[in-house]
Amino acid sequence: MITVLIVGTGNVGFHLFNAFSASKTINVTQVSSRKLNDLPKADVTILAVSDDAIVEVSKKIKNSFVVHVSGSKSINELNNKTNKGVFYMLQTFSKEKPIDFNKVPFCLEAQNDDDFKLLENLAKSLGEQIYNINSEKRKVLHVAAVFANNFTNHMYKIAKDICDKHDISFKVLLPLINETSLKINYLDPKESQTGPAIRNDEKTILNHLTLLSENQKEIYKILTKSIQNGN
Amino acid sequence: MITVLIVGTGNVGFHLFNAFSASKTINVTQVSSRKLNDLPKADVTILAVSDDAIVEVSKKIKNSFVVHVSGSKSINELNNKTNKGVFYMLQTFSKEKPIDFNKVPFCLEAQNDDDFKLLENLAKSLGEQIYNINSEKRKVLHVAAVFANNFTNHMYKIAKDICDKHDISFKVLLPLINETSLKINYLDPKESQTGPAIRNDEKTILNHLTLLSENQKEIYKILTKSIQNGN
Repeated sequence: MITVLIVGTGNVGFHLFNAFSASKTINVTQVSSRKLNDLPKADVTILAVSDDAIVEVSKKIKNSFVVHVSGSKSINELNNKTNKGVFYMLQTFSKEKPIDFNKVPFCLEAQNDDDFKLLENLAKSLGEQIYNINSEKRKVLHVAAVFANNFTNHMYKIAKDICDKHDISFKVLLPLINETSLKINYLDPKESQTGPAIRNDEKTILNHLTLLSENQKEIYKILTKSIQNGN
Repeated sequence: MITVLIVGTGNVGFHLFNAFSASKTINVTQVSSRKLNDLPKADVTILAVSDDAIVEVSKKIKNSFVVHVSGSKSINELNNKTNKGVFYMLQTFSKEKPIDFNKVPFCLEAQNDDDFKLLENLAKSLGEQIYNINSEKRKVLHVAAVFANNFTNHMYKIAKDICDKHDISFKVLLPLINETSLKINYLDPKESQTGPAIRNDEKTILNHLTLLSENQKEIYKILTKSIQNGN
């Protein structure tokens, strides 16, 4: 039995608590980050708090092994005097939707093998995709995730804005969006690029630009240039 | 029984021919666009040729109803003297992978109700998502698709470049990519945006910029600005 204390009641804390509660090998407790007095002891204390709160919250925790869940913060952001680690789940969470933890990559970091093994067992109780990622690599992964998730989502948003403006249902684009992301599971994105940019189809490109707002035009041009330059 | 003649042997022609061949209500023939003499008669002649070939190929066809399959070209690009139409499938096709036509939106256009009905029956023999989209709207849809497909794929490509450069497996990002696109089926992309840009997290943004190439930096900045401005 591994005892886990979750500090924080946001999205990540919520889903982690539910998932650990369902596991027979985990004994989990959850507290708000505003109530740090008389914390129960635990094998692992998981700070599921906002990035900016890690320094202050970790300072107040005396438990033996404290980890944060942030993609962008180093392990050294933790200010506890005991052992440190990171339990980063590279996935997008929303409170309304249940998480399929088998589709969550666990990016783990610890200061020694025993602690890593403990985090690994914790992750294995929830899912199966487990990676050893140090703070430097996690930072890189986090910026890559901004492109893969935030910026991709912004492309969807612009596509929807264009449809809305011309009274076209965004629904027409959903199958294409889903297929584009499925392709990535077996085809290198560089190899699977199609469209006017990679074809150097200047006529279509100029035609497209006439339909866009100034902001959309700027983005269209810069991404077209980037695709054409292969960078 | 509807008789169909497909002119062109590329990706789209290949998949259409296979799909129609499997349908009991369609009698399909396929010819290369380089052999336009003595074409068999057909209820619908589908030009599955490149955008730039539509004018020249359509000029040589005497069949009663000729349609093209292009997202970016107007119905008036067709140069035949008889009836015209468009049979545009808004999906990404690759020759290696079979198409699930139930996931293909058929965007149809014709000059009269009877012709439209014919195209609709043709589409219904393959799939179920059928839309009446005129040339002007199809052009808009095509530029929206560039954002939703080509530019999104380019975001994946940049994410992979970042991973490759730092010796991190791109595989770690695949679950996030897939989940991001699934979310779009039930959440407005504007509502579901997360990450440092929408949070105005300048510290993380500056941190990210230090990890990027000049070209990646330029794209990161412009998309961050666009997310923050809500446009």
